[in-house]
Amino acid sequence: MAGAFERAAAAVRPLDAAAMAEARARQDRLTKPRGALGRLESLSVQLAGIAGVCPPPRPAPAAVAVFAADHGVVAEGVTPWPQDVTAQMVANFVSGGAAINVLARAAGAAVTVIDVGVAVPLPPACDGAPRLLRRPLGPGTANLAAGPAMDVVTCSAALDIGALVAADLVAGPPGARALVTGEMGIGNTTPAAALVAAFTGRPAAEVTGRGTGVDDAGLARKTAVVEAALARHAGAVAAGPRETLAALGGFEIAALAGFIVGGAAAAVPVLVDGLIADAALLAAERLVPGVTARCIAGHRSVEPGAAAALEALGLEPVLDLGLRLGEGSGACLALPVVDAAVLVLAEMATFDAAGVTDKSHGKSPA
Amino acid sequence: MAGAFERAAAAVRPLDAAAMAEARARQDRLTKPRGALGRLESLSVQLAGIAGVCPPPRPAPAAVAVFAADHGVVAEGVTPWPQDVTAQMVANFVSGGAAINVLARAAGAAVTVIDVGVAVPLPPACDGAPRLLRRPLGPGTANLAAGPAMDVVTCSAALDIGALVAADLVAGPPGARALVTGEMGIGNTTPAAALVAAFTGRPAAEVTGRGTGVDDAGLARKTAVVEAALARHAGAVAAGPRETLAALGGFEIAALAGFIVGGAAAAVPVLVDGLIADAALLAAERLVPGVTARCIAGHRSVEPGAAAALEALGLEPVLDLGLRLGEGSGACLALPVVDAAVLVLAEMATFDAAGVTDKSHGKSPA
Repeated sequence: MAGAFERAAAAVRPLDAAAMAEARARQDRLTKPRGALGRLESLSVQLAGIAGVCPPPRPAPAAVAVFAADHGVVAEGVTPWPQDVTAQMVANFVSGGAAINVLARAAGAAVTVIDVGVAVPLPPACDGAPRLLRRPLGPGTANLAAGPAMDVVTCSAALDIGALVAADLVAGPPGARALVTGEMGIGNTTPAAALVAAFTGRPAAEVTGRGTGVDDAGLARKTAVVEAALARHAGAVAAGPRETLAALGGFEIAALAGFIVGGAAAAVPVLVDGLIADAALLAAERLVPGVTARCIAGHRSVEPGAAAALEALGLEPVLDLGLRLGEGSGACLALPVVDAAVLVLAEMATFDAAGVTDKSHGKSPA
Repeated sequence: MAGAFERAAAAVRPLDAAAMAEARARQDRLTKPRGALGRLESLSVQLAGIAGVCPPPRPAPAAVAVFAADHGVVAEGVTPWPQDVTAQMVANFVSGGAAINVLARAAGAAVTVIDVGVAVPLPPACDGAPRLLRRPLGPGTANLAAGPAMDVVTCSAALDIGALVAADLVAGPPGARALVTGEMGIGNTTPAAALVAAFTGRPAAEVTGRGTGVDDAGLARKTAVVEAALARHAGAVAAGPRETLAALGGFEIAALAGFIVGGAAAAVPVLVDGLIADAALLAAERLVPGVTARCIAGHRSVEPGAAAALEALGLEPVLDLGLRLGEGSGACLALPVVDAAVLVLAEMATFDAAGVTDKSHGKSPA
């Protein structure tokens, strides 16, 4: 496992310019006004660049990796949910009853759950579950309000775990042709907001949101926690992205950063979910500049930090459905649109083949 | 066929409040923070109200109806595309090579094409095509810049055709459980913009766009045509929605209005596509107040008139992907999201069943 992240980082290539040019040229011959399919056209070009071939393969089967971990910062009262819920939700994922299970089934995607540090023992329902990987880095992170969430060595281990999960899912069987980021961790919108603030330079108040539903007092407390953490860990932030991720992050967030880089190295598109994944992508981009070009923002979460992260990354999300669940739900919902982008490029008739007059060659009444 | 629209109009019911309340209550017991699935939750409630049962049936199989017709207003130079392209595209739909064919296949939906008034004879490829209905109302509309696009009797016939197509698709086989509006007609963004202006009271300049791609001079000419038409047909606009639709509309636009009402009468959700369908829905809502509650705006087209229509209708579109193709493409792309909304409501575990602590009952660290 050691070194999996560094190997992946070294394997990330720029997008294939020739395949992208071919996709662009083909889009302009398809029986529709040029550019009329908007985002589907730009997605098809990006996917060709990722795969290095035109038309690119469909993003199927897709694999969702749900990284689960707990957070010492819950001691600061940043969430109304008890920490036990992280473990309970892992059991729910394993039983197939959570939102991500429903959405993944609808999209034909498999869900793998990775315990990278849930605080309490997983319920008996998890024993022997085939799609649950146990890779605990500890019983949750330390409280980032009192010290670093984790040390840099542990952060590197989380990056390795994520990169390896991505490589394994792509290697198969059945061999994922798209990866979807998922996560679960009571309290994890607080470290995510802190990371977004640290990586974008925005103030805490602009990137801290209500998460799973804190009230006004809770939001004020959460914002203060993020603000204080940024001040406390200013040295780590100045030291570099890995130190920042260790000081302010979470096991599942660091693993997601590794997962994103692992997927990029394997030349499959990585569909990035909401705030937590956006924060992980900010870290991944600082660690491996250019990795974002191989990612697709599945949606824009209502969490303010998500929009801030996407803007900093230059990403336009596919969906904007008022979601704030996480788990990979919004990214999974974007899969049919990504698939449609490939199908349009691959299957639509050209003007010549269909005998349709292209306006640039036809008579114009104007 | 005569009277099909009036019968459908009389059969449109308000949404079922009991089924909606049951859906709302169930959403709050599912293993997620309340409201965290945003638009999926509100869609599931609407779908329960449409079907009158909770959980509602999945929107599958869906049926796309592509109404095709030509427009006399092309004589004013409002589009760079030759009118022959309408007929050529009908052949492309029949052969399965157009964007709507690709997107419908991906969504498991069947495409039916209805010629309600294409100006030139359809190509031989259309002969005997099983999913092509020939219901021509004439060789395209008259030029709305010089007089009414059609008379009120013809408009009523178009409404009947649309209502009957909807009823037949729902009756099956196989029996559509969702309808998708589609259309094709070179020049049809001009009548659609005129209808949006007439029904929303907005000035021509605010609702007229580049359609399939006119240049600056073309846009100015098109806007002037819409403005002059509104002045010329002010009497029709004052007379009522049917007179407005006849004076400013198109055969396929009037048929779409009938189709929407027919789908609403049959208690299946109607997924509404871009500008042309939004204009048809504005007409349908004026003709049958309340019908909009049974519709879902599939996407927000980049055409300015589309956003104006959706705002007037109080509809929040599911997708916003920079599309401006029509054919039903954006509505078809929204089908997986609508399906996901049903699946979440029907298949997610409840807090009780999954043994997950609901924060409203659990301990809170705050």
